[in-house]
Amino acid sequence: MPEDPDLSHVAPDGRARMVDVSAKPITRREARAEAWVTVGAEIATQIGRTAAVAKGNVLETARLAGIMAAKKTAQLIPMCHPLVLDSIDVTAELRGERVRIESRVSCEGRTGVEMEAMAAATVSALTIYDMVKSAGRGVEIGPVRLLEKSGGRSGRWRREGDDDAAG
Amino acid sequence: MPEDPDLSHVAPDGRARMVDVSAKPITRREARAEAWVTVGAEIATQIGRTAAVAKGNVLETARLAGIMAAKKTAQLIPMCHPLVLDSIDVTAELRGERVRIESRVSCEGRTGVEMEAMAAATVSALTIYDMVKSAGRGVEIGPVRLLEKSGGRSGRWRREGDDDAAG
Amino acid sequence: MPEDPDLSHVAPDGRARMVDVSAKPITRREARAEAWVTVGAEIATQIGRTAAVAKGNVLETARLAGIMAAKKTAQLIPMCHPLVLDSIDVTAELRGERVRIESRVSCEGRTGVEMEAMAAATVSALTIYDMVKSAGRGVEIGPVRLLEKSGGRSGRWRREGDDDAAG
Amino acid sequence: MPEDPDLSHVAPDGRARMVDVSAKPITRREARAEAWVTVGAEIATQIGRTAAVAKGNVLETARLAGIMAAKKTAQLIPMCHPLVLDSIDVTAELRGERVRIESRVSCEGRTGVEMEAMAAATVSALTIYDMVKSAGRGVEIGPVRLLEKSGGRSGRWRREGDDDAAG
Amino acid sequence: MPEDPDLSHVAPDGRARMVDVSAKPITRREARAEAWVTVGAEIATQIGRTAAVAKGNVLETARLAGIMAAKKTAQLIPMCHPLVLDSIDVTAELRGERVRIESRVSCEGRTGVEMEAMAAATVSALTIYDMVKSAGRGVEIGPVRLLEKSGGRSGRWRREGDDDAAG
Amino acid sequence: MPEDPDLSHVAPDGRARMVDVSAKPITRREARAEAWVTVGAEIATQIGRTAAVAKGNVLETARLAGIMAAKKTAQLIPMCHPLVLDSIDVTAELRGERVRIESRVSCEGRTGVEMEAMAAATVSALTIYDMVKSAGRGVEIGPVRLLEKSGGRSGRWRREGDDDAAG
Repeated sequence: MPEDPDLSHVAPDGRARMVDVSAKPITRREARAEAWVTVGAEIATQIGRTAAVAKGNVLETARLAGIMAAKKTAQLIPMCHPLVLDSIDVTAELRGERVRIESRVSCEGRTGVEMEAMAAATVSALTIYDMVKSAGRGVEIGPVRLLEKSGGRSGRWRREGDDDAAG
Repeated sequence: MPEDPDLSHVAPDGRARMVDVSAKPITRREARAEAWVTVGAEIATQIGRTAAVAKGNVLETARLAGIMAAKKTAQLIPMCHPLVLDSIDVTAELRGERVRIESRVSCEGRTGVEMEAMAAATVSALTIYDMVKSAGRGVEIGPVRLLEKSGGRSGRWRREGDDDAAG
Repeated sequence: MPEDPDLSHVAPDGRARMVDVSAKPITRREARAEAWVTVGAEIATQIGRTAAVAKGNVLETARLAGIMAAKKTAQLIPMCHPLVLDSIDVTAELRGERVRIESRVSCEGRTGVEMEAMAAATVSALTIYDMVKSAGRGVEIGPVRLLEKSGGRSGRWRREGDDDAAG
Repeated sequence: MPEDPDLSHVAPDGRARMVDVSAKPITRREARAEAWVTVGAEIATQIGRTAAVAKGNVLETARLAGIMAAKKTAQLIPMCHPLVLDSIDVTAELRGERVRIESRVSCEGRTGVEMEAMAAATVSALTIYDMVKSAGRGVEIGPVRLLEKSGGRSGRWRREGDDDAAG
Repeated sequence: MPEDPDLSHVAPDGRARMVDVSAKPITRREARAEAWVTVGAEIATQIGRTAAVAKGNVLETARLAGIMAAKKTAQLIPMCHPLVLDSIDVTAELRGERVRIESRVSCEGRTGVEMEAMAAATVSALTIYDMVKSAGRGVEIGPVRLLEKSGGRSGRWRREGDDDAAG
Repeated sequence: MPEDPDLSHVAPDGRARMVDVSAKPITRREARAEAWVTVGAEIATQIGRTAAVAKGNVLETARLAGIMAAKKTAQLIPMCHPLVLDSIDVTAELRGERVRIESRVSCEGRTGVEMEAMAAATVSALTIYDMVKSAGRGVEIGPVRLLEKSGGRSGRWRREGDDDAAG
């Protein structure tokens, strides 16, 4: 019988189950994640042009998709707890030949919002892909990673090298 | 007024809209995508142990989450067309310190299933993250990328270097 | 750089984002909204006849659709916060050639339930349209409007002319 | 026993049920609807200012919400058939003190897309309300109405007075 | 390596996956299922009384929930294919101390609608339970079973003893 | 005018509505339910074989479907309140020719989690049916029933004969 003390959502007998958080205190939880999409120079130029159009653009569509996806996290990820989110913000900007997406989510609850931040960033990245795929199916998503989280028993965690203090 | 002939879902006046596919023929569509999750040696060992447990495990939970996510693609990605999918398959396996996820989706329709394959792979990867995050919040997702697609006007596309002919 | 101090969900730099309500106190929130559907005399008569049938009818179907829609509000409206609703009630009745729908929603939370009440009333009205459209595609929905809300920093608001004190 | 030959989704015995469309031919279906939101002069000015901001704005958020809502129509309206939509487009523009939303949906199927067009226009309007409600809870939605539909046994229908031939 | 030639959705290597139906012909599919809820004499009397009220009742609410659930089947059951349903009908009636629910679903597609019929009947039964549970938590659901299906390679199947020829 | 003091979600005038729980205290709520699926000896053997396969199996797929369904309860059952669940666990095991599913759900809220437990058990059972239906369409689901609930004004309830004290 394996013991997986460190794996979330895995019961002592090895089966997947939603962690019971009922004994955890309610605290303020925050998380920040990022996702990168490597689009190449040509598509980056095209995205930049749509960004100048007031009626809407690739980055804005991706941002909104990310915000809405954060609210669907518990429906997407089997063992995620449903949460009452207090805020969701997503930014998306061109950085050379890549798009950088950053998400930020907070709530007051018994479990963290890391997955909500990760889901928001990821679905924003998928939306970028969808909006530019006819111009380049080779576009790649990654890395997607947690930058920071706070709240709960494990307290604050910060990715090494992340220096967005104002975050 | 910018012209973005190569961007999907962008109207001539720059606003985002769902591409009109009504004039496209109905053809068989297939797509295959992959996602990598770098979990590190320790978590890889733990995942391997749960994989030996018949009652369920991390990789199986991720696989199922990916299959179910493919069916939600049009709800997640704003401009995606709803599609009647004929098959969805997702594999997930340890490759050293990484998990490799591969998705494969097919349908018969007026537009391709690239986004369904990408969404399946990505949500599987997010689920891996969720299942191991207590053991390592530094786990990274990426690259996520299309490997192959066929069907439709643009025909077959294959990522350079992808040699899984048996796909 | 525009300043939009009065617009909800618009960040100082002009981008849409979900308002951060984490600093707001949790208070009891209530909202009431109405929607009118102008169906004309002939359809009103038909609706009245189905209302006499115990097995179900147009107004009852609309009421249920509204109740269920209130629970989907955060999935429909991009910047709406998910909320744990304590009650939802919807009434629908014939008033001459029109159907009047009234919704009433309450919760205890950091943000109001105006959108839930508006969504319930609106989706009830859309359902009326769906149930009678074969008899009259010219049926019109409107006005849909908030009647009353209470709770939160802005306290109680009441539409001028609304006199349903017993609400 | 009432007879309601003209009401959609009402069985001969008076109970609500989804119309059986299996005997209908598959034809191209299109529908166009509009929704108006009376916001008043002050909010109109504020919306106009956000529309000048490339990073996103009230109208664009509403447009996207409408597009996504069209894909959820069968989940919102109890008797609506699920459909594989070929295109969805939504426009939103200021017209004096009002916002005018127009939706346009098409598919190839056994039943029409009127409800999808109506749902898209309505949810766009609700989103406008959500984005401006802090500045004016008295904002009203309406009328929401079908402008045009084509396809199917009943053929083309056009609202009297609608003269947007170019759609 | 086990072989499970008769289990749906199980790959040769034992893993769960959505059956690939792309090679199957499109045919008319129909299915009929039933669910029983044993409520006891007292609750049956109460349900009967609400059934006499035109404004809505327990059985009608259950019927609508079943119809809407049929459209969510592919979201509920991991390996179910999404389908474009042509009709859904659900009846619910008192039979002594039990409620009998019968569902009937049809589509034209590559795979059957058994699961849609089963899901409709089951969710109707759950809704009965929800509506009466304060009066009797001991209420039991079952049996839930397929009565009949037609279409596809396996053709027609009829539960022994089912004699609803008009079905 | 009927009086239905004991029926949940039925207003004094007979119409269905979501019970107003705003005056109820927030307490810890737990519920446990079970569902049985009679599959017969042959299918039981096949399920047993897949259960020995590490890559996934029928019972594990059913367990996950049940966990995810618990989170969708308020979307499935018209009058169910949305709840922030603290834990969901589902077990599924062969018992001779039947599969026994047991669900266990908890939250802290104003209303109970009976429906979440019932929905989890039921959707797990439906998933078993889906996974084995090609081998036996005659498989039956039932009984599905609540075993135990605690919390709230009505306190603890336990099905007579249920002796799983450790539950």
